Amino acid sequence: MGSYYIGVDLGGTKIATGAADATGRILVRDLRPTEAEKGTDASIANIKASIRQVLKELGGDSQVRGIGIGSPGPLSAEEGIVYSSPNLGWNHVPIRRILEDEFGIGVKLENDANVAGLAEWRFGAGEQCRNMIYITVSTGIGGGIIVDGQLFAGSLGFAGEVGHMTVVENGPLCGCGRRGCLEALASGTAIGRKGREIARLGVPTSMRDLVDGDIDRIDSVVVAKADAAGDPWAREIVDEAIRYLSIGLGNLVSVFNPDRIVIGGGVSNIGDRLFEPLKRMILTRAIRESAAHVQILRAKLGGDIGILGAICLVVE
Amino acid sequence: MGSYYIGVDLGGTKIATGAADATGRILVRDLRPTEAEKGTDASIANIKASIRQVLKELGGDSQVRGIGIGSPGPLSAEEGIVYSSPNLGWNHVPIRRILEDEFGIGVKLENDANVAGLAEWRFGAGEQCRNMIYITVSTGIGGGIIVDGQLFAGSLGFAGEVGHMTVVENGPLCGCGRRGCLEALASGTAIGRKGREIARLGVPTSMRDLVDGDIDRIDSVVVAKADAAGDPWAREIVDEAIRYLSIGLGNLVSVFNPDRIVIGGGVSNIGDRLFEPLKRMILTRAIRESAAHVQILRAKLGGDIGILGAICLVVE
Repeated sequence: MGSYYIGVDLGGTKIATGAADATGRILVRDLRPTEAEKGTDASIANIKASIRQVLKELGGDSQVRGIGIGSPGPLSAEEGIVYSSPNLGWNHVPIRRILEDEFGIGVKLENDANVAGLAEWRFGAGEQCRNMIYITVSTGIGGGIIVDGQLFAGSLGFAGEVGHMTVVENGPLCGCGRRGCLEALASGTAIGRKGREIARLGVPTSMRDLVDGDIDRIDSVVVAKADAAGDPWAREIVDEAIRYLSIGLGNLVSVFNPDRIVIGGGVSNIGDRLFEPLKRMILTRAIRESAAHVQILRAKLGGDIGILGAICLVVE
Repeated sequence: MGSYYIGVDLGGTKIATGAADATGRILVRDLRPTEAEKGTDASIANIKASIRQVLKELGGDSQVRGIGIGSPGPLSAEEGIVYSSPNLGWNHVPIRRILEDEFGIGVKLENDANVAGLAEWRFGAGEQCRNMIYITVSTGIGGGIIVDGQLFAGSLGFAGEVGHMTVVENGPLCGCGRRGCLEALASGTAIGRKGREIARLGVPTSMRDLVDGDIDRIDSVVVAKADAAGDPWAREIVDEAIRYLSIGLGNLVSVFNPDRIVIGGGVSNIGDRLFEPLKRMILTRAIRESAAHVQILRAKLGGDIGILGAICLVVE
């Protein structure tokens, strides 16, 4: 029948595989646990089984033109190797060759943030504009950069690490070991940590009530909920995160002069409360012409972003 | 005889024009004042006269394949128009069309920092690597970005404004009207201003002696001289500028994962005193793989950078 493309969204806890046509319409899906804790061989076996299941459901007379994989890194897209992934427990796994040997179909590998950027650019809020930056604000902050309609991965494939721009010298400690990274100031993790810090000071914040006094359970969702209900401490935490985001994004606007910045990840669900002040602040943070030009948009693709992005790797 | 390319380095005070072959060997030069203070027509007449002089010295039987111009901005390379340049006193000057009409040769226009980046990439310290960022640290801080061997100008041509990344929230006022830009913290202007501020506090700094007590004459060259002679106040000013540069460059390394960063402009003449600590600090500011990969180099081309860069615009 038709030509299809397979995308694998490989995560630390689950594998989502889908087959789509060139327009991004997903016809078949498979979702299963990664079982990273059982070791590298087990998780690779799960990836193979997931792809096999999708191929089976797709039917024998369909033509699969390629398999794309989005994976946590660091990895080498060029060599098709995942160097070391704390999330997967992998160390130097030549996943491209392994899957090409298994299925006899061309395979491409790219890191998950880049893949998500490709998906939003081709099928989502990017609308195939010329220059776009995708930012995911979630547990961490990652990015994918599209330059002249192509993924820009940098010289070794590590470009787009927007979460590790230093925004405050000597700021809070980041997971990467440095201080004051955007990720340490404005990620969901940072917002939740700030909420717990404030609640522990004993101030009368509703954040404590929302978790029945179990402060350890305060995360970014709780902070956002308290903020929406008018809690002034939560409001200041969210305001602060937005301010730091405006510095980071403003810097990217001055440096890249992009058409669009697309923001995804859990924290983007805060919605207009985040986007409206962020748009205003970027007008004051970046050089005038570029700030006036850029559109700041919410990601559109939701849960399928990983599958669709992996498919972008192999769609011509 | 051979094929030649003409480059015009247009500045607020002088016009430097040269003709070179495709290898960047400059055969003929002309230098004359811009006379911007006499008005737009006068400065355009000087540009024409400078090009005419170079064409004349080149001799009639040589073939000139194109004329490139590097100009202060903001400008549109695509339209060939200088929108408004405080340095030139120009406002919406279609310089490309004007020169094409005059000489009947194809003309290309680009802003001066981008042109300098192209020159260092093709003929200088960039050695035609894949991804390079050129930064000029002078009165201001500007940049030119080379992505996959091509100038990256962004969607409207304003990319590369690395001097206007916010490095310190609510930092010192920048010429652009915002606060805490890299340019307001680490440019030659910022270094000189800090020197004057310190000297006015009445501390026993040798910076005051170097200008015979006329504090207004303290500029970045005086600060660098006092630093080289061991003045501890000057040392702290230079250290601080390097620290801010390391934040700005570190952010660019994390975002672009470039092969090389090439630093030019007057402040780069501070030499190893600047480059050695800067290289060390970038290792602590940017993500590990990209920081380990990037080479931080001093620009090579000196005074001819503007002519050579303009020539890069038209050399195939």
